[in-house]
Amino acid sequence: MNFEIERRELLRGLGLVQSVAGRKTTLPILSHILLEWDQNSLYLTATDLETGIREELKATVREKGKASVSAKKLYEIVRELPDVLIHFQKKENQWINLQCERSVFNLAGLDPEEFPSLPPCKVENFSTVSTHLIREMIEKTVFAASNEESRYHLNGVLLTQSKQGGKDILRMVATDGHRLCLMDQENQPIQGIEKGLIIPKKGVLEIKKIIGDHDDEEEMGIYFDSTHGFFKLGKSLTVIRLIDGEFPEYEQVIPEGNDKKLMIGREKMYSSLKRISTMASERVEGVKLSLKKNSIEMSSYHQDYGDAQEELEAVYEGPPLQVGFNARYLMEALNAMNTEEVLMELRDEGSPGVLKPTSTAPKAFNQLCIIMPMRL
Amino acid sequence: MNFEIERRELLRGLGLVQSVAGRKTTLPILSHILLEWDQNSLYLTATDLETGIREELKATVREKGKASVSAKKLYEIVRELPDVLIHFQKKENQWINLQCERSVFNLAGLDPEEFPSLPPCKVENFSTVSTHLIREMIEKTVFAASNEESRYHLNGVLLTQSKQGGKDILRMVATDGHRLCLMDQENQPIQGIEKGLIIPKKGVLEIKKIIGDHDDEEEMGIYFDSTHGFFKLGKSLTVIRLIDGEFPEYEQVIPEGNDKKLMIGREKMYSSLKRISTMASERVEGVKLSLKKNSIEMSSYHQDYGDAQEELEAVYEGPPLQVGFNARYLMEALNAMNTEEVLMELRDEGSPGVLKPTSTAPKAFNQLCIIMPMRL
Repeated sequence: MNFEIERRELLRGLGLVQSVAGRKTTLPILSHILLEWDQNSLYLTATDLETGIREELKATVREKGKASVSAKKLYEIVRELPDVLIHFQKKENQWINLQCERSVFNLAGLDPEEFPSLPPCKVENFSTVSTHLIREMIEKTVFAASNEESRYHLNGVLLTQSKQGGKDILRMVATDGHRLCLMDQENQPIQGIEKGLIIPKKGVLEIKKIIGDHDDEEEMGIYFDSTHGFFKLGKSLTVIRLIDGEFPEYEQVIPEGNDKKLMIGREKMYSSLKRISTMASERVEGVKLSLKKNSIEMSSYHQDYGDAQEELEAVYEGPPLQVGFNARYLMEALNAMNTEEVLMELRDEGSPGVLKPTSTAPKAFNQLCIIMPMRL
Repeated sequence: MNFEIERRELLRGLGLVQSVAGRKTTLPILSHILLEWDQNSLYLTATDLETGIREELKATVREKGKASVSAKKLYEIVRELPDVLIHFQKKENQWINLQCERSVFNLAGLDPEEFPSLPPCKVENFSTVSTHLIREMIEKTVFAASNEESRYHLNGVLLTQSKQGGKDILRMVATDGHRLCLMDQENQPIQGIEKGLIIPKKGVLEIKKIIGDHDDEEEMGIYFDSTHGFFKLGKSLTVIRLIDGEFPEYEQVIPEGNDKKLMIGREKMYSSLKRISTMASERVEGVKLSLKKNSIEMSSYHQDYGDAQEELEAVYEGPPLQVGFNARYLMEALNAMNTEEVLMELRDEGSPGVLKPTSTAPKAFNQLCIIMPMRL
C-alpha cells in the first residue's frame, strides 16, 4: 500500500479542488486531479489552466508517489464511503487501487507527468492580509462584474493600491458597464500590485469559496507577479491567471454633482423593491423612483400583468424628481451594504445614481455603488 | 373592498394550488387561478384539465364575487408581502386591486366565467380512508411508474379492490416495463373501484404533496366515478382525470418459481449499491450480484473509469448464482421498504428477481418489487 488517509480529510480536500477540475473538456487530463504523496502529506492539485488549486492533506505515506485520476469519479466514490481509513495503492499502467472496509475500487488513471504544473510560488513574496477584509471586498464588489464573455476585460475585478494621506489604500472595483461597485480598505499592502491588475471573476469566486471553507483562518497570504495572483490560506494554495487587458477609466464615471440626497432605511427599501419588482418587466427589470419631500414612491409596470406602487418615508429635502433604475441592481447594491441606513445621491433622470452606506456606520470605510439610470 | 385575508393563509393556499396552474400553456386561462369569495371563505381553483385542485381558505368577505388572475404572479407577490391582512377589490375589466400595508398592486385578470369548471363532486360518495395508508401505498409504488410519454397506460398507478378471505384488499401497482412494485392494504374499501382504474402519476404525486401539507389529517375522503378520482383532505379537494387505457396483465409477471432465497440487511445492501453504482456505466447502470453460500458480492464495471466490488454477508443456502440488475431499480426498491431485512428471491440469470420486506416486519402487509434482469 502506498498511503492511507481518513475519508473525512480526503473528502474535504476533494470538495475544495474538484470544482476547478473538468471545467474545460478540451484536454482530458484537466478533468483529473493530481495526487502526490510524500512525508505524511497527500497533495491534491486541480486546474483549468486559469485557476489552479493545490491542497495539502494529512496522510500516512508508506512510499512516495503520484497519480492522476478523474476528479468527478474520485469525489463520487469518496462521498459514498464510510468514515474510516482509505488505502491507496498505485498499480501498473497508471491504475489506482482503493480499498475501504470491504469496498475495492480500481480507477483508470493518466500519466501524472502530463498534468500541467502550477506556476511556481515564491513563499517569501507573500504579504499577510486579513481574511475577513478580503472576503468583505469580494462580497461587496464581485457581483457587479460582467458575465458577458465578449467583455473580457470586465469579467473580473480591478485591484489597485495607492497612498492617500500617508495611508495605503487597497481598492477593489467591478463593473459591467451598467453599474459599478467600489470598496477601499486601509493598511493592507500587498506585494506586486502596482498600477492595478484584473483578477477574473471565476477566480475571485473561488477565493471567496475557499475563505468560506477556512473560516477559522484570520490571515491569508497574497502576492502577484506579472501574470498570476497567489493566494495562500491555511494549507490551500490558489493560483489565478490575471486578465491581460485594460480596465475602463472608472474614476471618470464617479458622479461629482449629485446634489439630491436621500437617506432611507436599507432593509425597508430592499423589501419594497423586492415586492415592487414582481411587477417589473422581466427584460428590463425597471422600477421608477419618485422623490418628494421626505418620501419616495417606487412603482413598476408590466404590460401583461399590471402595475405596483409603494410609498416609503425617507429623509429628502430636495425638489420632486423621477428617475428609473434596474431593480435588481438597486437590490444587489443595498444587499452589499451593512449599515442601517443608506444614502442615495441623484442628479436628474438622465444621470447615474450613487448608493453609499451612511457615515453612521460602525467602521468608517469607503464603499459606493453607481447605477446607470433607465428611461421607463 | 370585496374581501380581506391573512397573508399567511393565502400563501398556504397558493402554495398548494399554484403548481397545477400553468403546466399547459395552450389555454392562457389555465395559467390562472380562479378566486371565488363568499361567506367567510375564499376558494382557490387551479387546473391543467387533468388534475384540478380547489382549496377553501378563511377570509372576511364584504361582497360575494369572483376573479381570475395569473397564478405565478399572484404567488410571487404574496410571497413578498408582510404577514398582515391583504385587501382585495375587483375593478372594471376584470382587474383586481390588492393592498397590503403601503403596497398597492393592480393585477390584470381574465373573465372568471371562462375558467374551466371542475367535474361536480358528490360529497355523499366519499369513502373514508386512512391518510397514512394511502400515503404509504403511493410512496412504495409510484416511483416505478413510467415517465415515457409514449407508454401512456403505464404513466400511472393501477388501483384495484378485491375480496380475499373475507377481507377487502386495496392494491396499488406501478410498472414501467422494467420493474413492477405492488402494495396491498386491508379493509380500506373505496367507492367506485370495480375491476381497477389507472390514476396518472402526476396526479398521484399531487395527492402525495397535499397529504404532506396536511399531516395532521388522519383521514381523507376518496371516491371514483367512471372518468375521475375525487380526493378530499381537510379543505382541499383534488380531482384527477383517470387514464383511459388497459393496464398490463401484471399478475402473470409475478414469478412463481424463484427458489433461490437470500436474506440481507436492507440498509447495508443499499449503501453498498450506492458505492458500487458509482462505477456502473451511466447508460445501463448495471451491477452484477454474485451469490455464494452466506455471501453476496456486488460488482460494477465502467469502460472509462474502472471497476468496483464489495462483498456482504447474507443468509443464503443455495448454489452459486450470478445475475445482473439495474442498480437504481434495486436501490429504489430497497428504499421503498422499511423492514430491517429484506428477502430477495431469484431463479437464474435470465429471470426477474423479487424483493420483499421480511415477515419479521412490525405489521404484516403485502409488498413486493419485481425487477427484470440484465446481461452484463
